Amino acid sequence: MDKIDINVDAGEGFGIYKIGNDEEILKLVSSANIACGFHAGDPVQMAKTVEWCLENNVAVGAHPGYPDLAGFGRKAMSFGFDEIKNMILYQVGALASITKALGGVVEHVKPHGALYNKAAVEMETANAVIEAVLSLEGPALVGLAGSQLIRLAKDRGLRVYEEGFADRNYEADGTLVSRNDPDSVISDPVKAARRVVKMVKEKKVDVRGGKEIGLHVDTVCIHGDTDSAFLIAKEIRDALAKNGIQLIKPGSG
Amino acid sequence: MDKIDINVDAGEGFGIYKIGNDEEILKLVSSANIACGFHAGDPVQMAKTVEWCLENNVAVGAHPGYPDLAGFGRKAMSFGFDEIKNMILYQVGALASITKALGGVVEHVKPHGALYNKAAVEMETANAVIEAVLSLEGPALVGLAGSQLIRLAKDRGLRVYEEGFADRNYEADGTLVSRNDPDSVISDPVKAARRVVKMVKEKKVDVRGGKEIGLHVDTVCIHGDTDSAFLIAKEIRDALAKNGIQLIKPGSG
Amino acid sequence: MDKIDINVDAGEGFGIYKIGNDEEILKLVSSANIACGFHAGDPVQMAKTVEWCLENNVAVGAHPGYPDLAGFGRKAMSFGFDEIKNMILYQVGALASITKALGGVVEHVKPHGALYNKAAVEMETANAVIEAVLSLEGPALVGLAGSQLIRLAKDRGLRVYEEGFADRNYEADGTLVSRNDPDSVISDPVKAARRVVKMVKEKKVDVRGGKEIGLHVDTVCIHGDTDSAFLIAKEIRDALAKNGIQLIKPGSG
Amino acid sequence: MDKIDINVDAGEGFGIYKIGNDEEILKLVSSANIACGFHAGDPVQMAKTVEWCLENNVAVGAHPGYPDLAGFGRKAMSFGFDEIKNMILYQVGALASITKALGGVVEHVKPHGALYNKAAVEMETANAVIEAVLSLEGPALVGLAGSQLIRLAKDRGLRVYEEGFADRNYEADGTLVSRNDPDSVISDPVKAARRVVKMVKEKKVDVRGGKEIGLHVDTVCIHGDTDSAFLIAKEIRDALAKNGIQLIKPGSG
Repeated sequence: MDKIDINVDAGEGFGIYKIGNDEEILKLVSSANIACGFHAGDPVQMAKTVEWCLENNVAVGAHPGYPDLAGFGRKAMSFGFDEIKNMILYQVGALASITKALGGVVEHVKPHGALYNKAAVEMETANAVIEAVLSLEGPALVGLAGSQLIRLAKDRGLRVYEEGFADRNYEADGTLVSRNDPDSVISDPVKAARRVVKMVKEKKVDVRGGKEIGLHVDTVCIHGDTDSAFLIAKEIRDALAKNGIQLIKPGSG
Repeated sequence: MDKIDINVDAGEGFGIYKIGNDEEILKLVSSANIACGFHAGDPVQMAKTVEWCLENNVAVGAHPGYPDLAGFGRKAMSFGFDEIKNMILYQVGALASITKALGGVVEHVKPHGALYNKAAVEMETANAVIEAVLSLEGPALVGLAGSQLIRLAKDRGLRVYEEGFADRNYEADGTLVSRNDPDSVISDPVKAARRVVKMVKEKKVDVRGGKEIGLHVDTVCIHGDTDSAFLIAKEIRDALAKNGIQLIKPGSG
Repeated sequence: MDKIDINVDAGEGFGIYKIGNDEEILKLVSSANIACGFHAGDPVQMAKTVEWCLENNVAVGAHPGYPDLAGFGRKAMSFGFDEIKNMILYQVGALASITKALGGVVEHVKPHGALYNKAAVEMETANAVIEAVLSLEGPALVGLAGSQLIRLAKDRGLRVYEEGFADRNYEADGTLVSRNDPDSVISDPVKAARRVVKMVKEKKVDVRGGKEIGLHVDTVCIHGDTDSAFLIAKEIRDALAKNGIQLIKPGSG
Repeated sequence: MDKIDINVDAGEGFGIYKIGNDEEILKLVSSANIACGFHAGDPVQMAKTVEWCLENNVAVGAHPGYPDLAGFGRKAMSFGFDEIKNMILYQVGALASITKALGGVVEHVKPHGALYNKAAVEMETANAVIEAVLSLEGPALVGLAGSQLIRLAKDRGLRVYEEGFADRNYEADGTLVSRNDPDSVISDPVKAARRVVKMVKEKKVDVRGGKEIGLHVDTVCIHGDTDSAFLIAKEIRDALAKNGIQLIKPGSG
């Protein structure tokens, strides 16, 4: 039977600010990437989000980002190896102790936003991310399917989950269409669900220009901050059921 | 033979800002409380400070504070139980994974500044601190010698180190003279060293008004941000040697 | 003919975070208090909010608060005279140059949250607020109707607008019911509108315990962050029209 | 008689963190660029620095930077036109009202760090800076001598001061050697002073590779955060006197 993990970015509020409907969406997915306070999130929201994960048997993951609350961690910033390694250790460790206090454990680390994109293609950042996650001796690394980061991490013996995106468009080279492009986000739940099924069943994804490319994914992401996130999650759940695909935590298949 | 731990607040810079001479002072003490990014400190400075601790066989401790970089965590702020518990878990966890990556372990937690003072006397804050440190299942708690926090923590079965201050004046009730008072800080190294010897040998401390009170301490603090911190540390080392007092990591006696 | 200013707290988002529906609510009121980046707001959101004000002939006001984004400026914090004076000058000046670039001018200053509450009752804070606004040589000061702040400001020759609240409950002494109290906020639009009419027509407000007290107000506040803010604003507009009360900018009557 | 303005970056501390010896160095220069709270500085330090300027007849200037306290505004970050324009208006306005309260006026605006460097060479940033300063209707703009920013600003009718650096090395194309290069900073006071005299007398500067290039400067910068800033300032003062060059506020010659 085909299997897939559906992950969602969660805990992306700050103080009185809220984004998305985590409580509901976490009933529909199998793993979550929780913001750790640098680009979004605060200690109390992290704890609340972990609780919802544990209640719904959702894998708890860390979602470390650049220290840029104003830009939601999506702004390109230049950091050296030590800065990246330690900002990841810092954020994952912070979530780890909050999660431990609630009886859970951090199962994966997925860099956020501009850090995610840079780690996929730039050696120093990729190596710093890998070094940090290796040091943690536990969590797997989630990265862009087919990216250099994935290859480097595998070479270092790190457990990795290759990630596809239900709600983002792809370029022909397998990278994501930039968020500055009006065409970057897919908000139609039916279209998003169809892409997920294609990734799992055919190991392919449609790209810009009307072509498709091969893509092996272990997990598929839904962004919790899109307006249609909840509808997309529901549509994907239905599509998985209809197509005989099992929803599982990453690494448990 | 008498024994005492000397602890120093360390890693209190931020970005390009530096405070104190951690590299030198960490050669003279037996344990350190490292700022964790909320009132001071950043991931790279935390890592650097932990390295210096490990090189000098200094016990690594976490020094979590209020989220108030502008006020250095010394401003009174009102937080509820969940906020305090999770901000401590967050900060200690952050330091723990940075420390683990360098081959060490966080051995104690000492709340900083306004959080330290409030935890000593106010039930909700004290209980939140205790709950957080219990959840961490490892580090001991450092608190004001003789305080309600210490009593509550012992009742909960938490390992505690009672702390005295070499460089701060005491009120007759055993609390510290407020930093708003010009008389709060002791900057004379000889005077500071004499107080430490008295705490260890006689289990007493001089207080305002010319009296002395009984005080049992497991560890004595030097503030790394005072100008005379390095001289105080040296003077205390000499005084300990001269008086046959052994310098040890907390809990190792 | 009776006249009243209706003011709304606006521009309270930060980065990608949004609060309230400023664009719509600013079509219904006569003045706005714009967050200035310390407890909420950022330069781009400030500019956008000022634009909406100018399009709708709404008086632009500054809403300076404590530097506490995580607590939305509602946490009690201790600041001295110089800190308060300069944080107000800083925030109002920031809004003033953004407003000037768009062809407008800052017409009033209303302290936010915990700063507002402390200024109403504590001398050092009140005097620092007054000193700051006097230095600006232009804007009026908005403060709690009947408070010590208002009296002190009038004594110093400062132009003041006394403020009542449509959506907050009052204690018998004319102070606001604390936000920690479940009974603090009024979310029923009809009830809120009825209170406004009573403030204007009878110069009275209902307080806890079933009584009413005298209250002279120049302006009535709607909080932009309550869910029912837009409905409250509409209901108040209707009630004003029905009761022959003219909606005017503060100070223009 | 030859004339030159010597400017210094000042007010670059934050909270308890201090950088440089502003009080002393402001006795030696003719203009100051004061950090405005985004990359460094806070309202109280801004006020203190303005006071020192006014006491010493030093021209008060604003030194707006990227919102990056951790990186001291020296990290490259990507911002659009509206973000840059409004972050400059915000910061200059903040300083303007603090300065006005002390009886002074902001006479110039000099972008800081990564913003300064990007504005010198990149159109969108340059135009946003120019638009902001034009909107302020008062202060002049300080920018890299000979840069595109200077040309664009002159074309828009903005008053500009072209700036040279006493303590930074130049590339052959007139840009500054990157701070990542060990060779970027000149810390020898005598060498720095000699360069200033050459800029004024010969309108030339030595560049890497043993050559010199033509350079017209209205003002020369000393960085307040270098250890040798005070010595450099003194040496330059002596060299100016010895060479018959008058120290003047920018624009007053």
